[in-house]
Amino acid sequence: MPLLFTGSLGIDTVETPTGKRDDVIGGSAVYFAYAASFFTPVRLVGAVGDDCPKPMLDVFKGRDIDTAGLEVRQGSKTFRWHGSYVKDLNEAVTVEVDLNVLAERAPKIPDAFLDSRYVFLANTHPALQQQMLGNLKAAKLVVADTMNLWITTERAELVKLLGKIHGLVLNDGEARLLTEKKNLIAAARDVLKMGPKFVVIKKGEHGSMLVSDKDVFVLPAYPADVVVDPTGAGDSFAGGMMGYLATQGTFSPATIKRAMAFGTVVASHTIADFSLGGLQAIDREAIDDRWHQFKQAMSF
Amino acid sequence: MPLLFTGSLGIDTVETPTGKRDDVIGGSAVYFAYAASFFTPVRLVGAVGDDCPKPMLDVFKGRDIDTAGLEVRQGSKTFRWHGSYVKDLNEAVTVEVDLNVLAERAPKIPDAFLDSRYVFLANTHPALQQQMLGNLKAAKLVVADTMNLWITTERAELVKLLGKIHGLVLNDGEARLLTEKKNLIAAARDVLKMGPKFVVIKKGEHGSMLVSDKDVFVLPAYPADVVVDPTGAGDSFAGGMMGYLATQGTFSPATIKRAMAFGTVVASHTIADFSLGGLQAIDREAIDDRWHQFKQAMSF
Repeated sequence: MPLLFTGSLGIDTVETPTGKRDDVIGGSAVYFAYAASFFTPVRLVGAVGDDCPKPMLDVFKGRDIDTAGLEVRQGSKTFRWHGSYVKDLNEAVTVEVDLNVLAERAPKIPDAFLDSRYVFLANTHPALQQQMLGNLKAAKLVVADTMNLWITTERAELVKLLGKIHGLVLNDGEARLLTEKKNLIAAARDVLKMGPKFVVIKKGEHGSMLVSDKDVFVLPAYPADVVVDPTGAGDSFAGGMMGYLATQGTFSPATIKRAMAFGTVVASHTIADFSLGGLQAIDREAIDDRWHQFKQAMSF
Repeated sequence: MPLLFTGSLGIDTVETPTGKRDDVIGGSAVYFAYAASFFTPVRLVGAVGDDCPKPMLDVFKGRDIDTAGLEVRQGSKTFRWHGSYVKDLNEAVTVEVDLNVLAERAPKIPDAFLDSRYVFLANTHPALQQQMLGNLKAAKLVVADTMNLWITTERAELVKLLGKIHGLVLNDGEARLLTEKKNLIAAARDVLKMGPKFVVIKKGEHGSMLVSDKDVFVLPAYPADVVVDPTGAGDSFAGGMMGYLATQGTFSPATIKRAMAFGTVVASHTIADFSLGGLQAIDREAIDDRWHQFKQAMSF
């Protein structure tokens, strides 16, 4: 089933201990859509400026990604991010950021996308997330992401959003900030009380955790001995997870666990190269192979 | 098969967000021996001073722990540690420490223990560790622990020790310090080059990792929503792991994985109460039940 995703597309400059890349494609939507498209058709909603080099958007060519919702906005500039992982591969230091088109009005969801049943609301203002969701009358599985900024400044809107979605994906620091609980399981249980049926906490190099009504599941990251560029790992994880879920038509804990393992494996490929290079180098078979190997390695 | 363990016994004062306990039993040997004794007979080697309240040592009564190597040294004082986890449950702040008897000569290994085949050399000066090992002619599986102090000040002796043991258990910070590699898999592989057949890296709340010649295995911590007192978690993990290994007579990667899961489960009981309270509240059946539940929860 098609998976609707709305998020950012950008031009990144990234420095890591391995080297530096200038003006490469980045943004949550790019990683998410590419990752999810290994599993299911993706409907992409986002905006770039008229400065965005056309070849950059060609990354979606040949993928099962419907870019009808990708707006090239005249007179606007593309979102740009310059980050460095030179000091710590687990935490990006933002050297420079220009929101540009991201600071303007939200891109429109094409009418043809309004019947989407699987939806991932990437991190943006929670009022906007609710507005988008309001248009999607057939939504069956809605998962959202958020960030520190909204937890701090738009808490009331965020809580409203939480009452309307099935799943929330956030990182450990955000979970602690949202609930003021240090223990992540306790934090996730507090989030469940706000509405979602399940919470997935991303812990970076330490993997991820699923907490639902009856289940706590902890999954380590795929053990990688070489990390070239962690940019997009979290979005690739979410994309792989949601892409797999959209093919299953159910979101039982067992299904979400398998989906998280797929997300973990996709993310492990993302970090093996700069920008989209890691994902461009693989196919679904490589993902399945590593998934089975991971499953095997994780059993005891 | 009996498992020989030498380590510290002490009187602890511990503060955590849950409360404070004064003058409770502590020390690596206490947690390790108690944890291992759920699985296999333990031969304990250690020393306390003549100030150690007799009832404190009664914790070993009724357990399969041979205390022939436990010396009550006249005129000496027992090791004391006062630690606080009030700021961060994952990192103890040492408020006060008195090495006392630990700063004196090492306790003697009783002749009856010299035929031990399974040995855990707890953290102490690596020259002492080698000296003890030199007496144990029948040792079949020798695993050692170490700490920052020896990595920094006694590196040459530590490297000599590494050439003589089968396994090394250390935490993530120590692995990085020893090898100057940030990536833990790369760090563990460097340790393997120094001699051991396997390395187990403890990552606290993030679980543990096994690296051997052909295998990388990552195991999350047991998901605990209440942590009362993390003191002894690492020693309980090592005790449970070694206790199980001593019953298996082999240390294949598959066996070590199962052993690590047992260590993880034992540690999850340790942190549920102050001092030894968590371990005193359970039996082997409770460990096996949680082990199976953990194994089930970890599969996807």
